Amino acid sequence: MKNFVALLTDFGAGDNFVAVMKAIILGINPATTIIDISHDIARHNIKDAAFLLMSSFSYFPKGTVFLAVVDPGVGSNRDAIAVKTKNYFFVGPDNGILSLAAGKDTIEKIVALEKKGFFLEKVSSTFHGRDIFAPVTAYISRGTPITRFGKHLKKLKEIIFPVPRIQGNTLEAEIVYQDKFGNLITNTTKEQFLNFVRGKKFIATLRNKRINKIYSFYAQAKNDEPFFIEGSFSFLEISLKNKNAAAYFGVKGNEKIKITIT
Amino acid sequence: MKNFVALLTDFGAGDNFVAVMKAIILGINPATTIIDISHDIARHNIKDAAFLLMSSFSYFPKGTVFLAVVDPGVGSNRDAIAVKTKNYFFVGPDNGILSLAAGKDTIEKIVALEKKGFFLEKVSSTFHGRDIFAPVTAYISRGTPITRFGKHLKKLKEIIFPVPRIQGNTLEAEIVYQDKFGNLITNTTKEQFLNFVRGKKFIATLRNKRINKIYSFYAQAKNDEPFFIEGSFSFLEISLKNKNAAAYFGVKGNEKIKITIT
Amino acid sequence: MKNFVALLTDFGAGDNFVAVMKAIILGINPATTIIDISHDIARHNIKDAAFLLMSSFSYFPKGTVFLAVVDPGVGSNRDAIAVKTKNYFFVGPDNGILSLAAGKDTIEKIVALEKKGFFLEKVSSTFHGRDIFAPVTAYISRGTPITRFGKHLKKLKEIIFPVPRIQGNTLEAEIVYQDKFGNLITNTTKEQFLNFVRGKKFIATLRNKRINKIYSFYAQAKNDEPFFIEGSFSFLEISLKNKNAAAYFGVKGNEKIKITIT
Repeated sequence: MKNFVALLTDFGAGDNFVAVMKAIILGINPATTIIDISHDIARHNIKDAAFLLMSSFSYFPKGTVFLAVVDPGVGSNRDAIAVKTKNYFFVGPDNGILSLAAGKDTIEKIVALEKKGFFLEKVSSTFHGRDIFAPVTAYISRGTPITRFGKHLKKLKEIIFPVPRIQGNTLEAEIVYQDKFGNLITNTTKEQFLNFVRGKKFIATLRNKRINKIYSFYAQAKNDEPFFIEGSFSFLEISLKNKNAAAYFGVKGNEKIKITIT
Repeated sequence: MKNFVALLTDFGAGDNFVAVMKAIILGINPATTIIDISHDIARHNIKDAAFLLMSSFSYFPKGTVFLAVVDPGVGSNRDAIAVKTKNYFFVGPDNGILSLAAGKDTIEKIVALEKKGFFLEKVSSTFHGRDIFAPVTAYISRGTPITRFGKHLKKLKEIIFPVPRIQGNTLEAEIVYQDKFGNLITNTTKEQFLNFVRGKKFIATLRNKRINKIYSFYAQAKNDEPFFIEGSFSFLEISLKNKNAAAYFGVKGNEKIKITIT
Repeated sequence: MKNFVALLTDFGAGDNFVAVMKAIILGINPATTIIDISHDIARHNIKDAAFLLMSSFSYFPKGTVFLAVVDPGVGSNRDAIAVKTKNYFFVGPDNGILSLAAGKDTIEKIVALEKKGFFLEKVSSTFHGRDIFAPVTAYISRGTPITRFGKHLKKLKEIIFPVPRIQGNTLEAEIVYQDKFGNLITNTTKEQFLNFVRGKKFIATLRNKRINKIYSFYAQAKNDEPFFIEGSFSFLEISLKNKNAAAYFGVKGNEKIKITIT
């Protein structure tokens, strides 16, 4: 059966880090097809990587092996792990990066990567993506059971994905990701939002600017009028037609936003 | 027979948009090979995408399926289409993005994408690249005839590619694209240019700066001397040796340039 | 046997230059798998490309064909060459770009690319990556012996990789590359360094700032304290924990650094 490997890192495409990992994977499993999720995660931003992985994995063919490496602790005593879930495999450092995706697909087994026979001969202290994770990923894609890599672990390190909170007539949402268009992705689904507002008018305030519209598609919006929309990540996003909402609001990184029924 | 899919979007490589489209394509047709043309088209710049597609398609193996998505009207009532040309297939929104390439290869058939059985189960109003175009592209690459996707359309929306105009001893060219090196690609071929100047001297003026040389290769030019050259797109380009001509001239986007025989 | 092609250029991913080369390669050899090393080499920086190629090739499966194009002299009288080494093939302009990698793997044969039957029908003076190098690369990946492309050459143009120099109690190292994280890669291996300092204290000075620590992995370092570390390229690097060392030191491009035993 055709087998796929997907890569997600903060290594960038300008150096040779990603290429070297691919070379190693294809050397071990020449028949696999490798798909890049992204290599442009902001340096060491484990949260963004975990969010992207969670938002991506279910579109891939069953059996895909996901290798995610954002790894500020490389060389220290953090564990390296492989996870078997209901439909997929996940490989990476045990720093939370795999937890949102693996948790969503139901974790079946977690192992520590310990058996050196599966690593490159020389293992550095700075690039486990190449020396440990790439070869292990390739072996999994070839069918090696993850139990052969090392001891069983009871759980992996988890990142908490914030849930929207409702108090009275206010819903407190949180911005969890910003895409390249400047759309601000929240932690709140359209369903959660609609169940909350129930057809009434609402006002949301972010950095002293207001949002009081929700649209179904971009072309509905007026120019320079910020709005909510159910975006590509299946969450409500704050958008600005043909413009960069993050720049408009002056928002960087995670931030809370209160939506009040009026 | 080995089959190829080529992708062209303004989605960027930093988020997971492109990866998710690839995942869906490979899930439906695991044997296809996907080639990225570019994902760095400036946001919503349909013209640039149409130009790049026109300049690229003929180098690909016959039968390649091109999926091009720059889609500011996603979710509105613009059509989604598939086009069969003499040698290729093109898929995308009906906003002109496919028209230059498809027109050049001779259009044989155009259909609207309507049959939901070929789409993802849930179709969003913000990401048809994933929900409609990716699966349809994959089915075409597997051999599904495009007539199965929906009703026949008589024509597609067209973008006009400007033609150079000659009046007396002046040729009015137009800059239609700027590449990453800052070369300014015009709408005029070397043949058109040479037929016009017929060995005489010429002066072109762009933003108060002059060009009066044409070279065959970059190393012929002096430093800091702008010149015309037949570039990679088979059109005359305005270049500056080892430098960025767009920055030198202060040019952004399309602009006209008059070339006068002296 | 499965065959691989690896690409390294300064063409960027935003235009269609790389895509067109891939289209031509896959048209000639549909079964090959293409791996991007990088397309973000700074414009015309042959040295950076040669360094990345040298640092990458040995991780690839034997028989991989490397196509490296950073080619300011395209169209002039510089040779186009193919090189067979002990385990690999290298294709590109004869401007030094191939020399560090090919030299490291032991050169067996060098030929000039002359036989037009292996090129595209129309060869431009501005894009040999497409017109000459891509098709030749594809033919090599299909098994065509390089001797069929043209006459034997005795040697290729070489880039000199600087060696660290020891004088008394000072080692003069040189920064040869900067990665996307801002790590400054030197020409000195950890072994060379340790043999030099032999357990004594040392001070290195770069732009009036000091380095007097060497660590095994990033997490050992304190914040805002620059240090040496054996990095991913198997050379000592100058790093700053979670920060950009190049920005900290204000270093651009190659620069010498003196390490003195105290």
